[in-house]
Amino acid sequence: VLGCGYWGSKHLRVLSSTPGVDRVVAFDRDGDVLGAVAERWPSVEPASSLTELLEVVDGVVVATPPGTHGTVACAAIEAGCHVLVEKPIATSVAEAEAIVDGAECRGLVLMSGHTFEYNPAVWKLRDLIRGGDLGRVLHASTARLNLGLYRGDVNVLWDLAPHDISILNYVTSSRPDSVSAWAASHAHDTVEDVAYLRLHYGRIGLVAHVHVSWLDPRKVRQVTVVGSRKMAIYDDLAGDERIKVFDKGVVLEPAARQAIPPTASYRQGGMECPHIDFEEPLAVEARAFVDSIRWGSEVVSDGRSGLAVVRVLAAAERSLRLGRPVEVDDGDTCRAAEGPAVAGSAAGTGAHRYNGRLSGRAPGP
Amino acid sequence: VLGCGYWGSKHLRVLSSTPGVDRVVAFDRDGDVLGAVAERWPSVEPASSLTELLEVVDGVVVATPPGTHGTVACAAIEAGCHVLVEKPIATSVAEAEAIVDGAECRGLVLMSGHTFEYNPAVWKLRDLIRGGDLGRVLHASTARLNLGLYRGDVNVLWDLAPHDISILNYVTSSRPDSVSAWAASHAHDTVEDVAYLRLHYGRIGLVAHVHVSWLDPRKVRQVTVVGSRKMAIYDDLAGDERIKVFDKGVVLEPAARQAIPPTASYRQGGMECPHIDFEEPLAVEARAFVDSIRWGSEVVSDGRSGLAVVRVLAAAERSLRLGRPVEVDDGDTCRAAEGPAVAGSAAGTGAHRYNGRLSGRAPGP
Amino acid sequence: VLGCGYWGSKHLRVLSSTPGVDRVVAFDRDGDVLGAVAERWPSVEPASSLTELLEVVDGVVVATPPGTHGTVACAAIEAGCHVLVEKPIATSVAEAEAIVDGAECRGLVLMSGHTFEYNPAVWKLRDLIRGGDLGRVLHASTARLNLGLYRGDVNVLWDLAPHDISILNYVTSSRPDSVSAWAASHAHDTVEDVAYLRLHYGRIGLVAHVHVSWLDPRKVRQVTVVGSRKMAIYDDLAGDERIKVFDKGVVLEPAARQAIPPTASYRQGGMECPHIDFEEPLAVEARAFVDSIRWGSEVVSDGRSGLAVVRVLAAAERSLRLGRPVEVDDGDTCRAAEGPAVAGSAAGTGAHRYNGRLSGRAPGP
Amino acid sequence: VLGCGYWGSKHLRVLSSTPGVDRVVAFDRDGDVLGAVAERWPSVEPASSLTELLEVVDGVVVATPPGTHGTVACAAIEAGCHVLVEKPIATSVAEAEAIVDGAECRGLVLMSGHTFEYNPAVWKLRDLIRGGDLGRVLHASTARLNLGLYRGDVNVLWDLAPHDISILNYVTSSRPDSVSAWAASHAHDTVEDVAYLRLHYGRIGLVAHVHVSWLDPRKVRQVTVVGSRKMAIYDDLAGDERIKVFDKGVVLEPAARQAIPPTASYRQGGMECPHIDFEEPLAVEARAFVDSIRWGSEVVSDGRSGLAVVRVLAAAERSLRLGRPVEVDDGDTCRAAEGPAVAGSAAGTGAHRYNGRLSGRAPGP
Repeated sequence: VLGCGYWGSKHLRVLSSTPGVDRVVAFDRDGDVLGAVAERWPSVEPASSLTELLEVVDGVVVATPPGTHGTVACAAIEAGCHVLVEKPIATSVAEAEAIVDGAECRGLVLMSGHTFEYNPAVWKLRDLIRGGDLGRVLHASTARLNLGLYRGDVNVLWDLAPHDISILNYVTSSRPDSVSAWAASHAHDTVEDVAYLRLHYGRIGLVAHVHVSWLDPRKVRQVTVVGSRKMAIYDDLAGDERIKVFDKGVVLEPAARQAIPPTASYRQGGMECPHIDFEEPLAVEARAFVDSIRWGSEVVSDGRSGLAVVRVLAAAERSLRLGRPVEVDDGDTCRAAEGPAVAGSAAGTGAHRYNGRLSGRAPGP
Repeated sequence: VLGCGYWGSKHLRVLSSTPGVDRVVAFDRDGDVLGAVAERWPSVEPASSLTELLEVVDGVVVATPPGTHGTVACAAIEAGCHVLVEKPIATSVAEAEAIVDGAECRGLVLMSGHTFEYNPAVWKLRDLIRGGDLGRVLHASTARLNLGLYRGDVNVLWDLAPHDISILNYVTSSRPDSVSAWAASHAHDTVEDVAYLRLHYGRIGLVAHVHVSWLDPRKVRQVTVVGSRKMAIYDDLAGDERIKVFDKGVVLEPAARQAIPPTASYRQGGMECPHIDFEEPLAVEARAFVDSIRWGSEVVSDGRSGLAVVRVLAAAERSLRLGRPVEVDDGDTCRAAEGPAVAGSAAGTGAHRYNGRLSGRAPGP
Repeated sequence: VLGCGYWGSKHLRVLSSTPGVDRVVAFDRDGDVLGAVAERWPSVEPASSLTELLEVVDGVVVATPPGTHGTVACAAIEAGCHVLVEKPIATSVAEAEAIVDGAECRGLVLMSGHTFEYNPAVWKLRDLIRGGDLGRVLHASTARLNLGLYRGDVNVLWDLAPHDISILNYVTSSRPDSVSAWAASHAHDTVEDVAYLRLHYGRIGLVAHVHVSWLDPRKVRQVTVVGSRKMAIYDDLAGDERIKVFDKGVVLEPAARQAIPPTASYRQGGMECPHIDFEEPLAVEARAFVDSIRWGSEVVSDGRSGLAVVRVLAAAERSLRLGRPVEVDDGDTCRAAEGPAVAGSAAGTGAHRYNGRLSGRAPGP
Repeated sequence: VLGCGYWGSKHLRVLSSTPGVDRVVAFDRDGDVLGAVAERWPSVEPASSLTELLEVVDGVVVATPPGTHGTVACAAIEAGCHVLVEKPIATSVAEAEAIVDGAECRGLVLMSGHTFEYNPAVWKLRDLIRGGDLGRVLHASTARLNLGLYRGDVNVLWDLAPHDISILNYVTSSRPDSVSAWAASHAHDTVEDVAYLRLHYGRIGLVAHVHVSWLDPRKVRQVTVVGSRKMAIYDDLAGDERIKVFDKGVVLEPAARQAIPPTASYRQGGMECPHIDFEEPLAVEARAFVDSIRWGSEVVSDGRSGLAVVRVLAAAERSLRLGRPVEVDDGDTCRAAEGPAVAGSAAGTGAHRYNGRLSGRAPGP
C-alpha cells in the first residue's frame, strides 16, 4: 500500500485479512503516518522507500493524492508490479492513458479503485436494469453529499463524481458522449465544493444528473433510476433497504405523447426491497485484485473503465470553463471533432462557475 | 373559487372554515366537476357562469389552468374583485405585469398563491437566516420530486419551481439576477418532466440550485441552506423534524482560503429541531387574503413577488432554449441589457435539453 | 354529534362531506365549545339540548367522555336513534351489555367507533393473515405511544388499548381468553399513563403484547405480526410504507425444536410494501354508519365487537389489581367456566408464560 | 481469547489493534473455528489447549457459551490471569459470586463484558441524567429486537437483557429491587424467544420496562428515558442521531395531581441531538481492560456490576416460573428478606403496579 491516509489505511485493514496475501507492506512519505500504521497494525511491515516496497511485493495499491497517481502508478508498473489505483486513476486523460498503455504493454493487472463496482447493492441495480425489470431506462439522478473532506489536490468533482460516473457506466453498460457541468466554490476561494453534472448517454437515450457536494450537513449516497416499467432507488446508507424497487410509472398512450395538455395516468403499485447479501465492497475489491494477480481472472473495473471515467471528468472540467456542454473524448475518433468546440468558444464565459467571491481562476483554456 | 380541480377543491375546503367568509361560491367550466363539488360540500354555492360569480363575491381565488391565469385574473380585476391567483400567476412576464398593473390601478388586493410563504416552517427558516444563526448564506439547494402530476398546460418548471423560487426569494429577502436551466422530457415528447435550475443571487453572493421532477418514485420536498456558521434543512414531509439546524461547518483560516491543497478542519456539533406550531399553510393563506380584503392588511406574497417569480421562470425557459445562463429581467433597467444576449446566441444550441427521443420542439427564439 | 371535543369535531368535519347526510346537528354541554363549532362549521346546526338533538336526527355519534358513553348511548337508543359510540363503548361490561341489548331489542344500528377497522392498511394486514401469506401467526406486538393526551375519566389503558385490541381481534378473527397487565402512573398520582398488556388468544395459539403510553416523546403507532412464513409490520405513520412484509423467518427442523442448544438457521429474504389506496378511516367509518342506517348493510365493528373489547379491558383492569393473569369473560357460556379458574388459580399461575404449544417446562418452583 | 465464535472473533479483531497488546492468542475447542481464525487473522497465534493459552497470557477474554463462563473464568483466575467475561458473566448467582470472590481474593482484574458501558452515546445519556437535564427520571423503556440469533445455552432473556439491565443500572447509578417477567417461546419448544421485564428501582422511584426479542423482522436497539423536565431517546442504530433530547413534558399543577379528570397541559419544545464523538465500544472496552491490567486503573463494568446483572436475570427467571414479581437478591442482607416473599406471596401481589409514589389505589380485592 502506497499512501496510508484515509483510504490507504482502509486498504491496510482489508488486505490484512484477504486470503492469498502473505505480506502487507506499507509506505508513506510522512514518517509519522507510517509510524502510526506500524503501531496500529502490528502485522503490517513498513517500507523505508517506494523503491524498497516495489521490490518486495507482487501488487501495489496506489492510495496517494490523486495528482500523483499517474507518476506513482507508472513507476510501479515499470517495476513490474500489478497495480490497483484509487479513483480517479489520474487527473488528466494523458496520464490515465499512459497508465493503461504501460500495464497493457507489460501484461500487468491494472485495476481502478471503483469500489462501487464491488458493491452487492450496485450489482443488484445492474441486474434489475439488465434483466429488464425497470424497462427502458429513462432517467437517472445521483446525490453524493457530505461535509468535507476538502482534500488533497482536486476539487469535489474529481474527488466524488468518479463514484457516480463509474456506477452509471457500470449499471447501464454504456458511457456518456457529452457532459455539462455547473460548480461553485464557497469555503475555499478556487477549489469547487459543490458541483452538478448532466451526462448524455446518447447510445441508450439516457440523460443522467449527478450532484456532488463537500458542503452539505447530511451524508447522502443515492442513485435513482427511472425506467419505463419500474423505478429504483439505491441508497448506500439504508442498511437492509439499500435497493428499493417501485412498481410505479406514468402511463401515456402513444397518441398522448404529443398531446397538449398531456393526459397521463399513473401506475401506483407496491415497493420491494430485494434481499442483498452485503459484504464490505473494499474487501470484495481486494479479493478481486489478489485473484486477478494469482489466477489471471478478469477484473470488472479494469484500467480502461478507469480511463473512461477520467475522460468524463476532463470533459466536465472543460464544460465548467466553457459554460456549455462538451463532448467526451473517447479515443482517436473524437479527438478531432472535439478540437473546434474548444477553439471557438472563448465567449462561452466563465459565468457558469460562480463562487460569490470573484473566482481567482481564469476562465477559458 | 374559479376552477375546482386539485387546488381549487383544497381552497373550497379551507374557505369553508375561514373566519370572515360568509359565502363560498364556486365555478368550473366542467359541469361534472361543479356537480361533484356541490355534492361534496353542501354549503358551497355553485355559480352558473364566471360573470355571475364575479357579481356576487368580494374576492376571487383563481385556480384555473396556469395558461388562463392572466385572462381570468384580469377579468376578475376588471369586475372589481380582489384576487388570489394560484402560482404561477401567469405564464408570461407581460401577462403577469398586466395583472399587477390592473390591481394596482384599481386599488385591489392581489395575492400570489405562494403557499410556502404561509408555512410556519418556512418562517422559521427565514428567522434563522435573518437572525444570523446560520451566518452568511453560502449555498442553497432544493429538491421537489414526485411521480406526476403531468398537468395542464405547463412543464415541470412552471408547475413546481415557483414554490422553490418563492421560498428562496422569501427566506433570503433577495431575488436572483441570472439563471441557468437544464431540463429533459421523458414520458411526453415535448413537455419537460425533470429540470434543474441554477440561480445566481448576486447581491448576496449566493448560488442556489433547484431540482424539480414529475418523474421520481419518492415524494421529496427539501430545502438545504448552508451558512458560514450553521446549516439548515427544511423537509416539509418530516413532521416534527421539518427544520433541522446543524451546528456544523468547514473552518478555513483566511490564509488557507487560497492554499492548495486546502487544509480545512471541520466543526462537528449537534443538531437541533426547533419546535414549530404547525398550521395548514393554505388556511393561513386564506385568512391572510380575507383579512387583507377586510382590514387592508398587507400580504406577504403580493402581486410583485408573484411577478418576480414569473420573471425567473421566463428567464429559465430562455436558458433552456439558449443553452447558457440568462439574466433575469427586473423591470425597465434590465430589459435593454437583456436584448443582446438573446440576439447573439443562435448558435447556443438546443443541446442543453435532451429528451432521448429527438425533441419535437425547435430550439432558439 | 354529541360531544364536540377532539374526536367530536373530527366527526363533524367528516360528516359534513359524507354522502347521504342531509343535516349535521351538534350538541355539547359546554356552550363555548358549541359556539366555536358553529363558527368554524357554518353548515353545522347547533342543538340546544340532547333531547332536541335526538328528536331531529336518525343517527347519533356519541363522542362524549368515555364514562358517559353508557348513559348517553342508552338515551339515544331509547329515543330510537341509530348509534355510533366512540371507543371504548362503555367503561364497564354491564354498561356495554346494556347498550348492545338495547340496540338489538329495538333493531337499531349500533356501531363501535373502532376506526382502525376502517383503515385500508389494517384490511391489508388482515388479508395477509387470512390469505396465508404469513403462515401461522406466532406472535404479535403493538406500540401506541405519544405525549398525552391525559384526558377525561379513564387511564391510558381504556383510552388507547381499545385500538390495539380491536385491531388484533379483527386481523386474527379471534378474541383473547386471558390477559395480564402492568401499568404505572407518573404524571398523575393515580391515573396510569403507561401500560403493557399480554393477551392470550388460546384458540389460535397466539400471545400478543400491547404497549400503550401517554408519556413518550415520540408518536408511535405500530403493530408487528410474526408468522411462521413471513413477518409484517404495520406502521400507521409511515405513509406509503404503512405495511411492510418481510420474507424472513427462523428455520428449525422439527427434531431441533426440542434440542438444546437450538440449531436454527434463518431465512433472510426481501421486504415488500404492498400498495394501499389510502382513505381517511374516519370517513370510511362515517360512510359505513350512514349506509347501514340507509340500506341496512352490516357494519364490521358492531356492538358485539365493542363489547368484546370492553370485556378485555375490564379483565386487564382486574389483572392490574390482582397482579396475575385474568380470564376474559366472554358471556354466559364462559361465565361458568371462568369461575373455577378464578377460584383455584394454582393451575393458572404458569399462565404468565404461554407458548401456544404447551410449554415443556413445569410451572412453579 | 477463549471461544472464537461471533463475539470472540470481534474481540480478536479489536485486540489486534489495541495499544499495549503484544500478542493475541486464541483458543477454541472446535479446531475448524480455530483454523479459520488463523487464516483470517495471520497475526493471531492459535493455542493448542486452554492450559497452554493460560500460561502465555496476562489477560483472558472469555467468549465461550454463557453456561461455561463460570467454569472457564474460574480456571483463568486460578491460573492467575486477569479476566474479561462476556455478558452474562455467569448463568447463576452462585457462579457469578464465585468468579467475583476469586478475582477479589487474588487481586486480579475482573471485567464484565457490558459493552454499552463503553459506548459514548450511553455516556451522554448518563450525563443528561446526572447533570439534571432530564429532571427526575420518571420512566424508562427499552427495546432490543432482531431475528435471532437463537444461540447456545440460554434464552433471549439471558442473551439480550443483560445489555438493557447494565445500561439502566449504569445511567441511573442504581439497581432494581424487584422484577416481573413475561416470556414466550415460539420457534423452539422451550427456549423463550420473546420476553418483557418490569424493573422496579425503588430507591429512585423508577419503573423501567425491557422488551427483548429474537423473533422480530427489524433490528431495534432503543432506550427511552422520560424525565420530569425533558425526555431522551437513545437509538444505537441512528448514526448521528443516536441521542435525541426532547424538550417536552406534561405539566400538572401539584393540586391537579390528584384531580379526576386530570387537567394537564403540555410543554412542546424542540428536539436536540448532541454531537457524540463515536468510537467502537468494543475497542474502548478492550483498551480499558488492557489499561486496567497495565496501570491498575478501575474499570466501570467491574465484576460486582456483572454480578448485579446476573442477580436481576435470576430473579426474572424466577418471576417467569412463579407468575408474579420477585425481589432481587442483593447479597446477604436481602437473602433473608426474600425468603418470605417467595413463600407467602400475598404481600407481594400488589407489586405488579408500582408508581414510585405509593399508589393510592388498594391492591387486590
